[in-house]
Amino acid sequence: MVRERIGKLRESMKAAGIDCYLIPTSDYHDSEYVSGFFQVRKYFSGFTGSAGTLVVSGNEAALFTDGRYFIQAEKELEGSDIRLMKMEEPGVPTIEEYLEQVLKEGECLGFDGRVVKAESAKKYEEILSKKNGKMIWDKDLSDKIWKERPALSHHPVFVLKECYSGESASSKIARVREKMKEEDCSIHILTSLDDIAWLLNIRGNDVESCPVVLSYIVMTMEKVFLFAEGKEDGIWTEELRKYLEENGVSLRPYDEFYSYIPEIHGEKALLCKERVSCRLLKELSEDVEVVDKDNPTSAMKAVKNQVEMENLRKAHLMDAIAVTRFMYWLKRNVGKIPMTEVSAAEYLEKLRRENEHFIEPSFSTICAYGANGAIVHYSAKEDACAEILPEGFLMVDSGGHYPEGSTDITRTFALGGLTREMKEHFTLVLKAMLNLRATKFLYGCRGINLDIRAREVFWERGLDYKHGTGHGVGYLLNVHEGPNSFRWKMQGEHLNSAVLEEGMVTTDEPGIYIEGSHGVRTENELLCRKGEKNDYGQFMYFEDLTYVPIDLEGVEISMLDEKDKERLNGYHKEVYEKLAPYFEGEMLDWLKGVTAPVR
Amino acid sequence: MVRERIGKLRESMKAAGIDCYLIPTSDYHDSEYVSGFFQVRKYFSGFTGSAGTLVVSGNEAALFTDGRYFIQAEKELEGSDIRLMKMEEPGVPTIEEYLEQVLKEGECLGFDGRVVKAESAKKYEEILSKKNGKMIWDKDLSDKIWKERPALSHHPVFVLKECYSGESASSKIARVREKMKEEDCSIHILTSLDDIAWLLNIRGNDVESCPVVLSYIVMTMEKVFLFAEGKEDGIWTEELRKYLEENGVSLRPYDEFYSYIPEIHGEKALLCKERVSCRLLKELSEDVEVVDKDNPTSAMKAVKNQVEMENLRKAHLMDAIAVTRFMYWLKRNVGKIPMTEVSAAEYLEKLRRENEHFIEPSFSTICAYGANGAIVHYSAKEDACAEILPEGFLMVDSGGHYPEGSTDITRTFALGGLTREMKEHFTLVLKAMLNLRATKFLYGCRGINLDIRAREVFWERGLDYKHGTGHGVGYLLNVHEGPNSFRWKMQGEHLNSAVLEEGMVTTDEPGIYIEGSHGVRTENELLCRKGEKNDYGQFMYFEDLTYVPIDLEGVEISMLDEKDKERLNGYHKEVYEKLAPYFEGEMLDWLKGVTAPVR
Repeated sequence: MVRERIGKLRESMKAAGIDCYLIPTSDYHDSEYVSGFFQVRKYFSGFTGSAGTLVVSGNEAALFTDGRYFIQAEKELEGSDIRLMKMEEPGVPTIEEYLEQVLKEGECLGFDGRVVKAESAKKYEEILSKKNGKMIWDKDLSDKIWKERPALSHHPVFVLKECYSGESASSKIARVREKMKEEDCSIHILTSLDDIAWLLNIRGNDVESCPVVLSYIVMTMEKVFLFAEGKEDGIWTEELRKYLEENGVSLRPYDEFYSYIPEIHGEKALLCKERVSCRLLKELSEDVEVVDKDNPTSAMKAVKNQVEMENLRKAHLMDAIAVTRFMYWLKRNVGKIPMTEVSAAEYLEKLRRENEHFIEPSFSTICAYGANGAIVHYSAKEDACAEILPEGFLMVDSGGHYPEGSTDITRTFALGGLTREMKEHFTLVLKAMLNLRATKFLYGCRGINLDIRAREVFWERGLDYKHGTGHGVGYLLNVHEGPNSFRWKMQGEHLNSAVLEEGMVTTDEPGIYIEGSHGVRTENELLCRKGEKNDYGQFMYFEDLTYVPIDLEGVEISMLDEKDKERLNGYHKEVYEKLAPYFEGEMLDWLKGVTAPVR
Repeated sequence: MVRERIGKLRESMKAAGIDCYLIPTSDYHDSEYVSGFFQVRKYFSGFTGSAGTLVVSGNEAALFTDGRYFIQAEKELEGSDIRLMKMEEPGVPTIEEYLEQVLKEGECLGFDGRVVKAESAKKYEEILSKKNGKMIWDKDLSDKIWKERPALSHHPVFVLKECYSGESASSKIARVREKMKEEDCSIHILTSLDDIAWLLNIRGNDVESCPVVLSYIVMTMEKVFLFAEGKEDGIWTEELRKYLEENGVSLRPYDEFYSYIPEIHGEKALLCKERVSCRLLKELSEDVEVVDKDNPTSAMKAVKNQVEMENLRKAHLMDAIAVTRFMYWLKRNVGKIPMTEVSAAEYLEKLRRENEHFIEPSFSTICAYGANGAIVHYSAKEDACAEILPEGFLMVDSGGHYPEGSTDITRTFALGGLTREMKEHFTLVLKAMLNLRATKFLYGCRGINLDIRAREVFWERGLDYKHGTGHGVGYLLNVHEGPNSFRWKMQGEHLNSAVLEEGMVTTDEPGIYIEGSHGVRTENELLCRKGEKNDYGQFMYFEDLTYVPIDLEGVEISMLDEKDKERLNGYHKEVYEKLAPYFEGEMLDWLKGVTAPVR
């Protein structure tokens, strides 16, 4: 089937004068997940993983994917003639290096420029200029071949009330216009869905786990055009249209965005080149001057306002009750009733759903037992998941969307028979998490300054975890949100290095992963707050949002120093005080026990 | 006198068509200190501090200087009509803001473009373009007015032998040419004196405390031109000329550099815009393409080779013997013999000089008693310095140049009657220094990642020190050297954010400064080394270079945790082992006592 599809693709390529066609995994908005309509790479390769790029030339096809998917991709590509390119393995070329090899003098590279980032296209263009080749960026060849292609998502839209958002859309729009003014810009183009949802206080369900609305925004100092109208579906009700109108927003058809862009003339446009598509930049008229800055909404939405902060505390409390009840259930029943990674995750979701505020999981739950815990992005499948037994660790990384905000929490549960090494690892993760959480710092610090507060615990023992220590979290939006994070490596300026501001929410989630054996991760969310201000400057600290017991059965108490104990006991005391009102009887006694101070 | 000089300057300005004349404190090479010839700002303002910019317009003159010099400048400017601009104080304009106020439509700003950095000039030009004004950058108006202006420094030059440098000049030149090739450049222009001295393995004495040679380099893939010949002095001996020739270096007169620059045509020039003068960029022909990258020598000289590392250990040992003897003398004699900040510093220098390898102090010693210790850049003067009494702290920050390298060490000595707060502060500084020094980290870390290892000790108590935690140190060169450092604030990419490489030397010098009371700083130099390499990556650690006792009489033992004690006792054990062979009798007993473990 895949062979046949690629055969048809090659015919279309020939007809279009394209020698090499590139299919990334992306939608028109560079979203973290892609819905059915955008699963073109999956359609043509048969590979179902969440990340990968397919490159098809006249006599070769290659799929690039990362370490998470090597085994799965090998299996799924079997018999397809597609070469698997294991990214970052020694001797494996990057996509750019591969294109340099495969493209001959004067040849043509093609792709749908709406799903390719402007910065990637720029690199491809450099390769092509060396080869006197050309780039066709406006051809979606899949459309004609893929007959049963799903429609674009058009889920119902709802307005997030001001009691949740804390600020009206028109106030947010006015703030963005102030930024446009600062940059002397007359127009602003916004294509990232979480930014749009935040700006207009609207939510939908058009990307898996991300309650956003498929749309684009072009705004001037007077007008806001929202390109989002679904043609046949009646999702933009009278009420919603009135809401938009009241906030000065005009609705236009989603599919007219790319034909609207070339009609902009003589403006100075604020946009973020790292976030927009290749096609957007290409379609812009030459008389439009681009000011390349991060979207003003990016920094604004990361800083939660007083109403959002207060709501987040509520969301995390509701979530903590569910996760703590899950812990009770798990520890009581493991080994007594049948339990798999999938059924446990389902039970946790059921507990969350018992709260009527719960909307949906904020991402696909990672419920990883034993050695599966060592696979950083593990995803259990119904037909191939582990049974949970009363030994080793179960790691559960999950979260929920509520009108009061989104949560993200990881707890690793000790189910029995831990080795000394396993306890040591659990304890190191705990020490690291507690250490970062307790950091007091001067205003002006970035995540890059603070990451070592968690990581030093590992580094001094020659250990590490190969992921960032934490990421920003959206408010009923993407669970991974910039520009704040805890990482030690420098990355693009727009994406990573933001100064930590009061109101920013960042996860604190060190971990350890021993292949074939076990994995441990413990994750709390931290709210950045202003502390004491004195002659040295404005000090900042973190307020806990997450209040769920840490499984003391995993802890090697002798490895905790006085500071660790103080922090752990202080945390557990608060966990008990927050949760106790919602528990009773045996479960309350249990809660008291698992949050009792260690000595 | 100052009034008369400024009067004459205004006449010259009028004649040259200049409405506003700017005099920074700099030489032609952006050196850290300026020698006699370059003290133009001092000549015209009467202000003797080491930093400041004088701006003279038709009816006003203003001197900009920073917090270190407010009191001194106020005194020295008295009766001069020059307005003191206290930089960074609320309401005080920056130089750029001031120029914007003072320059009228169509007016002309003038300066000697050899002493103004290209990036500063760029800012001035932006201001002028708004005012339709112009910039004259090739006028040194002081030359004709300052009759007794000292000559340019032309001190004897010597070759640093390969047993000290560890690499021949021709090998270094070849490495720079490789970098030029990588950047596809045909020419490289180098004006920073420490880079030139390192590249050619030559040393001189043309800048105070920096054993460099006034010179410029222009190099191609075949030739190296050294613009350095003093006209009348015979410093470039037959032997030196032969040495240069052997390394493919041609000597040209120093003062022909700026007339040579416009003669370069059609080349692609590698140079660092952050480091070169305004005039250099202005004189470059338009057909020269500039590739703006940090000088390749900057990263190369920061990474000390095996020979340099071995030598540095020797230099630090020689230096440690002198400083430890000073400590013995100080602790024995304070209160018994007359002692001032100046006489103590002289005694320390005398002890250093007893070693015949000692060349000169690597910077002007900071010997600060009591409240003077709270002044970060304190400099004691013969006629106005404190008497040292048997109470409080004496902070001594000093270093030496040796053929085996340069040293920089700070110790704070407890002389008696310390308050609880003073001991606490001393102990915090010690804990911070020990903590950073003990950091084990993955290759790829920069100073910006590690700074908090020292600073966290202060921040958790709402304290801070308003300087970086450490700076790179040159090898018989500038004691402040990039691109490595320990700082938490992001700065220009070229200057601050280098990845820590094996062989880099960085100081570890946290401090605390309580105005009007006391100051404490403890400084060791750390050599970055490769440690264990495993699946997680290449781990790095720091090797101590400095081995001088920490004054335990300042330490509040109860504030040390087990880790601190282990680190302190381990350090003192090594101090004893390294120094004991050079001490005997009573002094050896004393050494044993002051390095004994604490419990």
